[in-house]
Parts: sequence; C-alpha cells; structure tokens
Amino acid sequence: MSSKTQTEVIIDGKIYTLSGFESEEYLQKVASYINGKIAEFKANEGYNKLNQDMQKVLLNLNIADDYFKAKKQADSLESEIEARDKQLYDVKHEVIALQIKLEAALKESESYKNEISELQKQIVRLETQIKDKKK
Amino acid sequence: MSSKTQTEVIIDGKIYTLSGFESEEYLQKVASYINGKIAEFKANEGYNKLNQDMQKVLLNLNIADDYFKAKKQADSLESEIEARDKQLYDVKHEVIALQIKLEAALKESESYKNEISELQKQIVRLETQIKDKKK
Repeated sequence: MSSKTQTEVIIDGKIYTLSGFESEEYLQKVASYINGKIAEFKANEGYNKLNQDMQKVLLNLNIADDYFKAKKQADSLESEIEARDKQLYDVKHEVIALQIKLEAALKESESYKNEISELQKQIVRLETQIKDKKK
Repeated sequence: MSSKTQTEVIIDGKIYTLSGFESEEYLQKVASYINGKIAEFKANEGYNKLNQDMQKVLLNLNIADDYFKAKKQADSLESEIEARDKQLYDVKHEVIALQIKLEAALKESESYKNEISELQKQIVRLETQIKDKKK
C-alpha cells in the first residue's frame, strides 16, 4: 500500500497543498488537466463576463461532462468486448466441430485404406489361383 | 442536429441557467452527479472546515479523478479488445486450416471409395473367370 503524501499543486495560479494516497505525478497530471480547462474557458470572452460562481459551476460541469463521455466510451467498449466474446465462443465451437469431423474423416479414410489392402491381397490370391489352373 | 436549449439546473442549492446543445436530461444527470459529490464532501467534517476556495478545488479534483479513472478503464478495455481481436484472428485461421484439412481428408476418402469399387469389380471378374474355367 502506498503511504499518505503531501503534494503542492498550482491550480488557476494558486498553490494548494493536497494530502492523500495519490502519487505526486498523478496529482500534477490532474491539476494540469484542470488548468488546461481553465485556460480554454478564459480564452472565451463570454466566459470572462460571467460571475465567478457561474464560472466555477461551468468548470465543474465541463469536467463532469468529460467524465460522462469517458464513462460512456468505457460502457460501449464493454459491450464490444461482450460481442467479441460471443464471437470467440462461436468460432471456438466451430473449431471443435471441425476437429470432430476431421477425426471422423481420417478414421474413415484409414478404414478404406485397410479395406483396399485386403482387397488387393484377395486379387493376388485369385490371380495366383488362375495362373495355377493354367499350368 | 439538436438546437440550442436553455436548461435550469440546481447545483449546491443554487439555480443556474445553462445554454447549450446538450439535452435537458443529460444536464440534469450531470448536475445530479455533481450534487452527489458535494453531499459526499459535506458529510465529511474535515471538508467543512476548509475555506470555500479549497472546497471548490477539491471538488474539481475529485470530478477530474473520476474522469481519469473512467479514461483509464476505457484505455484498458481498448487493450482488451485488441487482445480479443488477435485471438479471434488466430482462431479464424485455425478454422480455415481445419477446413482445408477436412476437405483433403474427404477427397482422399472419396478416392479410396472409388478404388474399392474398382477392386471389387476386378474381384468379380476374376471370380467369374475361375468359375468359367471350372465348367
């Protein structure tokens, strides 16, 4: 288990000391993502005219929107995995069915081969019989 | 394309009018998710002692954390799909290889069957020859 650490991050130009189990690297990544959002918003004139409260709510909503989109993507990928699993199950069954058919065909082929060998022996016997009679 | 709509949402007890292309249903879901986060935080005594600025930053970080977790999950699911696709590719190749082997085995079996039929005819001829000689 990781131990509790203290990390300083800068968000919107202010320093915050965060205490938690997340790594410094991860917290800096998250802070950098939030700062990117803020920068995007601040580049928008309409946003700068809003009061601070509305600005913060819009930031929250925007991050939450990213979350819901990523979650939706994960859900759809999970459905894709299910579909692939079904496909895999079907194809694996096809492999088993083909293996059974192949085994049966090889067995049949082997039995025909034996039958041919027997018939050939029989022919040799009959031909010998005919030759002997001719003498 | 959907048209721009105005939706009122309540976040942390305040009404905000949002204007955008997202459906009212979606915006209410996002607002409800944020309110759930705020309620969770407010149930924590330590959080209530923090100044408002720190509270808002922690809320942002927490939502962003959800986003990064969902994104990580989506990334890992994408790798799983790739692995399954590779597996599917391999098993489909196995099906093709088995189909080729089966076809060859059936062809061989068929050719043995014809050979048997020819040998049987030859035996009948030889037996007839022997009978005729006996007369």
